[in-house]
Amino acid sequence: MTTLADSPWTRQRTNRAARLARAAALAGVRAKAVEADAIVALLEALIEPGDRVCLEGDNQKQADFLARALAQVSPERVHDLHMVQSVLSLPEHLDVFELGIASKLDFSFSGPQSLRLAQLLGAGKLQIGAIHTYLELFGRYFIDLTPKVSLIAAQAADAQGNLYTGPNTEDTPAIVEATAFKSGIVVAQVDEIVDRLPRIDIPGDWVDFVVRAPEPAFIEPLFTRDPAQISEIQVLMAMMAIKGIYAEYGVQSLNHGIGFDTAAIELLLPTYGERLGLKGRICRHWALNPHPALIPAIEAGWVESVHSFGSELGMEDYIRARPDVFFTGPDGSLRSNRAFCQAAGHYACDLFIGSTLQMDMMGNSSTATLGRIAGFGGAPNMGADARGRRHASDAWLKAGREARDGLPGARGTPRGQKLVVQMVETFREHMQPAFVETLDAWKLAEQARMPLPPIMIYGDDVTHVLTEEGIANLLLCRDDEEREQAIRGVAGFTPAGQKRDRAMVEKLRARGVIRRPADLGIDPRDATRNLLAARSMRDLVRASGGLYQPPRRFRNW
Amino acid sequence: MTTLADSPWTRQRTNRAARLARAAALAGVRAKAVEADAIVALLEALIEPGDRVCLEGDNQKQADFLARALAQVSPERVHDLHMVQSVLSLPEHLDVFELGIASKLDFSFSGPQSLRLAQLLGAGKLQIGAIHTYLELFGRYFIDLTPKVSLIAAQAADAQGNLYTGPNTEDTPAIVEATAFKSGIVVAQVDEIVDRLPRIDIPGDWVDFVVRAPEPAFIEPLFTRDPAQISEIQVLMAMMAIKGIYAEYGVQSLNHGIGFDTAAIELLLPTYGERLGLKGRICRHWALNPHPALIPAIEAGWVESVHSFGSELGMEDYIRARPDVFFTGPDGSLRSNRAFCQAAGHYACDLFIGSTLQMDMMGNSSTATLGRIAGFGGAPNMGADARGRRHASDAWLKAGREARDGLPGARGTPRGQKLVVQMVETFREHMQPAFVETLDAWKLAEQARMPLPPIMIYGDDVTHVLTEEGIANLLLCRDDEEREQAIRGVAGFTPAGQKRDRAMVEKLRARGVIRRPADLGIDPRDATRNLLAARSMRDLVRASGGLYQPPRRFRNW
Repeated sequence: MTTLADSPWTRQRTNRAARLARAAALAGVRAKAVEADAIVALLEALIEPGDRVCLEGDNQKQADFLARALAQVSPERVHDLHMVQSVLSLPEHLDVFELGIASKLDFSFSGPQSLRLAQLLGAGKLQIGAIHTYLELFGRYFIDLTPKVSLIAAQAADAQGNLYTGPNTEDTPAIVEATAFKSGIVVAQVDEIVDRLPRIDIPGDWVDFVVRAPEPAFIEPLFTRDPAQISEIQVLMAMMAIKGIYAEYGVQSLNHGIGFDTAAIELLLPTYGERLGLKGRICRHWALNPHPALIPAIEAGWVESVHSFGSELGMEDYIRARPDVFFTGPDGSLRSNRAFCQAAGHYACDLFIGSTLQMDMMGNSSTATLGRIAGFGGAPNMGADARGRRHASDAWLKAGREARDGLPGARGTPRGQKLVVQMVETFREHMQPAFVETLDAWKLAEQARMPLPPIMIYGDDVTHVLTEEGIANLLLCRDDEEREQAIRGVAGFTPAGQKRDRAMVEKLRARGVIRRPADLGIDPRDATRNLLAARSMRDLVRASGGLYQPPRRFRNW
Repeated sequence: MTTLADSPWTRQRTNRAARLARAAALAGVRAKAVEADAIVALLEALIEPGDRVCLEGDNQKQADFLARALAQVSPERVHDLHMVQSVLSLPEHLDVFELGIASKLDFSFSGPQSLRLAQLLGAGKLQIGAIHTYLELFGRYFIDLTPKVSLIAAQAADAQGNLYTGPNTEDTPAIVEATAFKSGIVVAQVDEIVDRLPRIDIPGDWVDFVVRAPEPAFIEPLFTRDPAQISEIQVLMAMMAIKGIYAEYGVQSLNHGIGFDTAAIELLLPTYGERLGLKGRICRHWALNPHPALIPAIEAGWVESVHSFGSELGMEDYIRARPDVFFTGPDGSLRSNRAFCQAAGHYACDLFIGSTLQMDMMGNSSTATLGRIAGFGGAPNMGADARGRRHASDAWLKAGREARDGLPGARGTPRGQKLVVQMVETFREHMQPAFVETLDAWKLAEQARMPLPPIMIYGDDVTHVLTEEGIANLLLCRDDEEREQAIRGVAGFTPAGQKRDRAMVEKLRARGVIRRPADLGIDPRDATRNLLAARSMRDLVRASGGLYQPPRRFRNW
């Protein structure tokens, strides 16, 4: 038998030891503690060319100090890195490619950097492995994309390197577990180093180095929607969602996407929903970031529980005062966890409702547009039928019955189905039609030489399309033609909508496949902003009893 | 504003404090430390009627001491519990229902207790909420099945209540996170209490009470298959799997079910696979418990990485010596994690291959048989097409092309697909046919008043059926009739197989939908046990360089 030192089976561990030894020799590094001005040298000592590196970019929390440091390493020493991180949101996340430090990328979402990402790709500065949904990327961390070095962010550390992430735990546990248990190296930036942490989110055992960043880690308030900006069209659509889908199926557990459309639903529950007698009958359990727009529904006693992917700036005190609703630690602050919340969103929710930029006549939808490579974050996971699900709920059984009723063979075997609702106004900004004959995704795939078009949610998985014109229930469509006409039938005055076969659309309406507001007993004249439980940020603050403290940019009073 | 004490929003926390106060007043409880003989009193103090309780029963590790204690509480004080636990494997897991302590059950798998579970259900002693796949149950822990009290098992604790789970971490992180962060209570049984843990798997912050159990927690070696029991039929089927599926699709990442069929594949990689020149081209990354049958392939350099749901008894030293392959902690022992490995199995693997007891002519399969309520563990999650997956691999793209080629509409939109292979001998034990016209699951659903028949893997998700007669590629079937004949065409001499339409089966064979061994260039006479890289437990031990130490019951030399 070989000894540990020369074993061909312990190369990763030996290599890790060599990296740690190089780091230990640096000035400014004492055991796990690293001085801020030693950080670039530390990364140069720890990272080797070709390494897979996870630079924690979450949906909200950003390891921004470490991102800047990584962009400062010498490309002669550190190059050809393969970045494996869920979100690209800071300029430095792309600088590393521009500077020749990194060359390959696997990710989930690049919203604010999507334009520059496409440009760098076009310029041959990087190679994209793939775009993933979050849980898929985390899964690959344990299979074929395990990070060698992870650069993460937490709120505080103690002397042993235990970490307190505070409310924005987000991706951290998934990243650290994959790295620390495969002979990788974990470097954490923290806002402060304290004697005793309010709680431990990541054991110090799993963390190799801690550096106090000069500034607190950057956090983005992505899920705050000012009710003042909700339109009456959105109120109308929200009424249809509540009466025509939530009530119809008895949806108990759900996830809402980001956006004003779903914020409107949240704000109508305690008013319109209450009037319909739905309290306690729908929307009891949520997989959701702590949306401020949910405050009135929580206060009115609609919400039994909320588990979160991440937190939301300004909601800290409110969450702390509502531990019966939110998952919180002994310190009172939120415990979020993107991996578990995505698993819950996939497997334990009856409904996902989100929006899109484009939908084709088969129901395929995408937010990918020409010249941008944006990724889809959690939508593909949440907006897919969870075919491994086996527990029943009324909503899931009814959707499954509608989808399979009368079908022969394997496709007709009784099975539940997740409700996946796309809620879109027929025209988006600048009068761009949301309904198109061909998604931009096809051209984008060609341009970027992707093996498949970047479709966010496949038509095969969408169950309802909801526009200001009505609801198309695709579950009830029995062939491609019906599906196409059902979509055209709610596509309004878009060119795709105008190409509808009027007779067939009326037939679909008679069958309840298409339902207009009138069919639902909704008078569009009732769809006023007065129905919103909060009509401004100030109303939200008031509804929270002063506990919600919106970030400055949302304070307009 | 209300104060914390009288707030209607902090009832869970107030209630938790009251429980902890009752516990603190007990003799034998000092801070987190509980004497073994105080355990029943502790549970009576902590648990209230109607509570949701998770009694950690994993696939392998069992909180057996706490299970016995729970079965001893007074049903007058503690009753109507709602048990939410992945596995029922100990008699005590059902005793609590028989004794009137618990009344409702949500679970994933009950293999050894499936008969008694059905009897108790029939006798009205319990109500089943639902049967789940593991990740689904974990998801619900964060939505609508959050445990109020969790009774878990770890290998060691320190004075602060930090836990070392050792190699069998399994479900523990998911259970503890859901409980500890929703004002629940976590009680851990440990084998020993030490000054310094080899590593920390669960932070002490998340744990309320620790009790040293009189005996180490029971662990079941579920994934050990003695190569001596592998038949030549299984060797033949394994050859077909490797040449006809793994090589054909270039499968890089995969999960194997439990069983001799897949053990045979593992043992053929370094012999037959090597001869086909497949090393490095297939089977590089695994989501898998550390199967002893994989040792020869690992030693021959086939395996780059293995991430595990749980561990396997006897593999400890071998794993410790192979950290380049397995996920291990700084102490050298395995870090398993069922939640992450299931996420990886769902989203990051190209192929799942498993077995079943029954399959119908639509390809629906189930291990549920009359009079038993067994559940399916991870199979529904792993054996379902991951429709949220967006990263491409050759295997996934090819399967998707085969499935969608020529289809119109939404169903024809290009998309990859997971390979889901059912590998079954046409007759199982006692000459029971594996292929049937109607699954027992239908009658079982009726008997147990389930809303849907307990199907393990839906025909809609199965891509290949592999028997000793050949491979049926269901991806290439274009209608129900083709699918039915493809299945009958490999169903051998079972009544279902004999009802095949011979002409159509030959047509399907000509099209490559059905492939016989001869079509694959496999001579059944070559399928001898000599092809197995290990033919006995002793061979496995030898292949491991003496590092693998099989449990006593597998030592037959």
